[in-house]
Amino acid sequence: MNRPDSLIFVIFGASGDLTKRKLMPALYLLYKSGRLPRRFAVLGMARTVYDDDSFRTSIHEGLLNFIRQDEVDQDKMKAFLREVYYLSADPSEAEAYIKLKDRLEELDRIKDNSHNYLYYLATPPLLYGIIPRHLKTAGLNREDKGFKRIIVEKPFGYDLQSAQELNRIYLDVFKEEQIYRIDHFLGKETVQNILALRFANTVFEPLWNRNYVDYVEITAVENMGIGSRGGFYDGVGTLRDMVQNHLAQLLAVTAMEPPAVFDASGFRNEVVKVYQSLKPLSDEDIRCAVVRGQYMASEGRKGYREEEHVPFLSRTETYLAMRLELNNWRWGGVPFYIRTGKQMPTKVSEIVIHFKPAPHSMFHCGSNPCPVHNRLIIRIQPDEGVVLRLGMKKTGEGFEVLPRDMDFSYAEIGRLPTEDAYARLIEDCMLGDSTLFIRSDAVEAGWRFFDSILKYWKNTPDCPLYGYPAGSWGPLEADRLIASQGASWTNPCKNLTNTHLYCEL
Amino acid sequence: MNRPDSLIFVIFGASGDLTKRKLMPALYLLYKSGRLPRRFAVLGMARTVYDDDSFRTSIHEGLLNFIRQDEVDQDKMKAFLREVYYLSADPSEAEAYIKLKDRLEELDRIKDNSHNYLYYLATPPLLYGIIPRHLKTAGLNREDKGFKRIIVEKPFGYDLQSAQELNRIYLDVFKEEQIYRIDHFLGKETVQNILALRFANTVFEPLWNRNYVDYVEITAVENMGIGSRGGFYDGVGTLRDMVQNHLAQLLAVTAMEPPAVFDASGFRNEVVKVYQSLKPLSDEDIRCAVVRGQYMASEGRKGYREEEHVPFLSRTETYLAMRLELNNWRWGGVPFYIRTGKQMPTKVSEIVIHFKPAPHSMFHCGSNPCPVHNRLIIRIQPDEGVVLRLGMKKTGEGFEVLPRDMDFSYAEIGRLPTEDAYARLIEDCMLGDSTLFIRSDAVEAGWRFFDSILKYWKNTPDCPLYGYPAGSWGPLEADRLIASQGASWTNPCKNLTNTHLYCEL
Repeated sequence: MNRPDSLIFVIFGASGDLTKRKLMPALYLLYKSGRLPRRFAVLGMARTVYDDDSFRTSIHEGLLNFIRQDEVDQDKMKAFLREVYYLSADPSEAEAYIKLKDRLEELDRIKDNSHNYLYYLATPPLLYGIIPRHLKTAGLNREDKGFKRIIVEKPFGYDLQSAQELNRIYLDVFKEEQIYRIDHFLGKETVQNILALRFANTVFEPLWNRNYVDYVEITAVENMGIGSRGGFYDGVGTLRDMVQNHLAQLLAVTAMEPPAVFDASGFRNEVVKVYQSLKPLSDEDIRCAVVRGQYMASEGRKGYREEEHVPFLSRTETYLAMRLELNNWRWGGVPFYIRTGKQMPTKVSEIVIHFKPAPHSMFHCGSNPCPVHNRLIIRIQPDEGVVLRLGMKKTGEGFEVLPRDMDFSYAEIGRLPTEDAYARLIEDCMLGDSTLFIRSDAVEAGWRFFDSILKYWKNTPDCPLYGYPAGSWGPLEADRLIASQGASWTNPCKNLTNTHLYCEL
Repeated sequence: MNRPDSLIFVIFGASGDLTKRKLMPALYLLYKSGRLPRRFAVLGMARTVYDDDSFRTSIHEGLLNFIRQDEVDQDKMKAFLREVYYLSADPSEAEAYIKLKDRLEELDRIKDNSHNYLYYLATPPLLYGIIPRHLKTAGLNREDKGFKRIIVEKPFGYDLQSAQELNRIYLDVFKEEQIYRIDHFLGKETVQNILALRFANTVFEPLWNRNYVDYVEITAVENMGIGSRGGFYDGVGTLRDMVQNHLAQLLAVTAMEPPAVFDASGFRNEVVKVYQSLKPLSDEDIRCAVVRGQYMASEGRKGYREEEHVPFLSRTETYLAMRLELNNWRWGGVPFYIRTGKQMPTKVSEIVIHFKPAPHSMFHCGSNPCPVHNRLIIRIQPDEGVVLRLGMKKTGEGFEVLPRDMDFSYAEIGRLPTEDAYARLIEDCMLGDSTLFIRSDAVEAGWRFFDSILKYWKNTPDCPLYGYPAGSWGPLEADRLIASQGASWTNPCKNLTNTHLYCEL
């Protein structure tokens, strides 16, 4: 991959939260470590009225708020801010793109940029379909001079049909290689490490299949509510906001076959195969194996329906747990339990591979459950690391076996990733590496599966939406769902320290 | 297993080092934690002149020296010492056993003991064949009233023929179930835990065979010379002192098939099968795949030939490294490299399972060896624990893979075994559980294999004995031996801390 010599990074929706919290900090960190093109500018565009200077001031403030203290370098920050420009224009209107083109040509001259543009869509989703059309009209998609790439934020589509429609628009304006659908989960070190764990080691792959795996849990929960995002969130819900993108990505890297070659097409071919293997859900499956919930007021925490901009009788889900299966040789018959929710007791994302018990138990386990079930916990955040639960001999007389954990923690090696997933992904896009971005066929294959749930909910207004107290682990129905496996969810205890404690211990 | 109500524990060779350092501390710890029979006495016997009181004084001194400070409880120690008695008599002479019988009957009355005797042979090995014969003559082997058990220390035999002869004597005097051939390695928590690791978990057993294991290393080395034991040691050498017993036990628990039932006969049947599977060594094998060494003076440390009571031109080995193979379905073609030596850089016993590399390497490893070889290190001592070496993604850009360790350490859970292996084994013998003791057929099967090396050395006086500097990792020929595997010995660094560092890191 080649780092381009020059680039203008255009942010649509530059006055918003994402720019301040994620994009600018990521760009600053890349700048600080010398990983941006030598000739570089950021051009922010939004309706809000700023000039270059007032925009820089606002970004500066944001950087100081959202960057780790030890990463602050005032000189470098000032130098970085000098590369930041602003264009006040409405990205929904065609005229804005004439202004944009002029400004880009001006910056091309200043920076001696060979017309390389990277567009970042940090706008509300309703503009995702409009911006590329305007870019095409203005000729800003053409690669006859310099490359053009576009990064699109989630959600890419609202259901299967809208995702297909968006794909149609994008593929009319750009070639697939120019389109970078971002899922910041794939930018996380710990998610990428799943690939290394699986495919750079020999000890897991022989076990990583239906012969040895009992079931798999994938959890990504938050301990916050929706905050001020009610207006956006209520029209979306957690299936669109978390499940069809982030959880589906985690599922893909956990379940995929080893790619023939680790590159954008090798990797993404395998992702698509996972989605294509998803066992289609019957109405009966959805009724029994998809649990949706909504948080209710509890212990001083607001209920979802009391949040700002949320309709009083909203039936939008803030929690989802479901069982799914993959119809392929590796995973046939192995249930995957996935769940996500807001207002949970803690914020945690992790994958737990539960191995089948030993076929023959020759030792005693005292008063503990016997035999010990091995499990591999891949902690995506927090307390990034990997834990292998083993049965070991209890010290002393006899041959009692107790559960013990082998642990690898990023904190131990003092090399916790300091950068956000965004820095990784933005850099990859600049380098032209689309491996960690979602390809159009994967978007559609994913939606094809999850769409059936949306449809069922729509057509079955009495399909239950379970309330759960804010700060709890979700509806009891979700516990029942996994109890059918003779199991329970792996819940980290509320107070996480450097090393997780799991509640059932 | 039943704890007997009463017992007299007879130590032959009670004035020696083993009694003071190991047996009495073990008995005291068992006493302190209430694990001795309620009515109990120790009767020490040796030629040295003591009466009960002066023997107790000497034992008291020993306890204070050899017991961990936090285990000292003066009241309990005094109470324990009141149960200690002494008989001054020469165990090589028949008359001693008339005295012994009288004294035992007297103690039976005092302790209301139902004639349960446990004999412990802590004498020089030359008495191992004599004592049981005298016991038989005196009728002290008969179980018509109470049980009689005998614990024999290593070495059990000097070669195949003498081991067979000893077995013949013991089986003439006792039934196999009465005979407890001790190997204190089997009393170690960490050795027993190998069985739990292998057979109470599902994640290792599928990998534990020729399909996934590249080779196995078994190391048990010491950083001391032979000290004042030259007289004994020179007639023995490391093959008899360490290899045919301790290393062979480690090999057995590492390589064995899962027992049908975990009891004395189930477990020991599998041990014997391992020894029976040892691929017999041709003279060519011995010449090429057995490296013997002797330590030479270096950096202020004496050479072996300068040690007290060692002949000036002694050709006794103080180091042995060898490659062996098992002719069975699980292990066919997998080399086991075993080594032991005195005057090494550190004291360490550990087993390293080296897994084959991944069949296809899709990531980069930077300047590191690639692909990462997985290995499981079972640390028997010190730093008791288990380490799994994995390849994980290097944090940051790209997809470089680095070796990282997952670790389980007994120290972390604050439950390091406080007792010595002897306490465990003595207790097992009192309970009548012979699982962790060597059965006669195992002794002979082991000797049948190792005897060929002794014979070859005897018949080939010019077979090289390599010198190595005291404080080094042994002769270079041993490095060459494993280099034929494209590998090198896994050497822990000299300064061990809580967690091993391996030198090649």
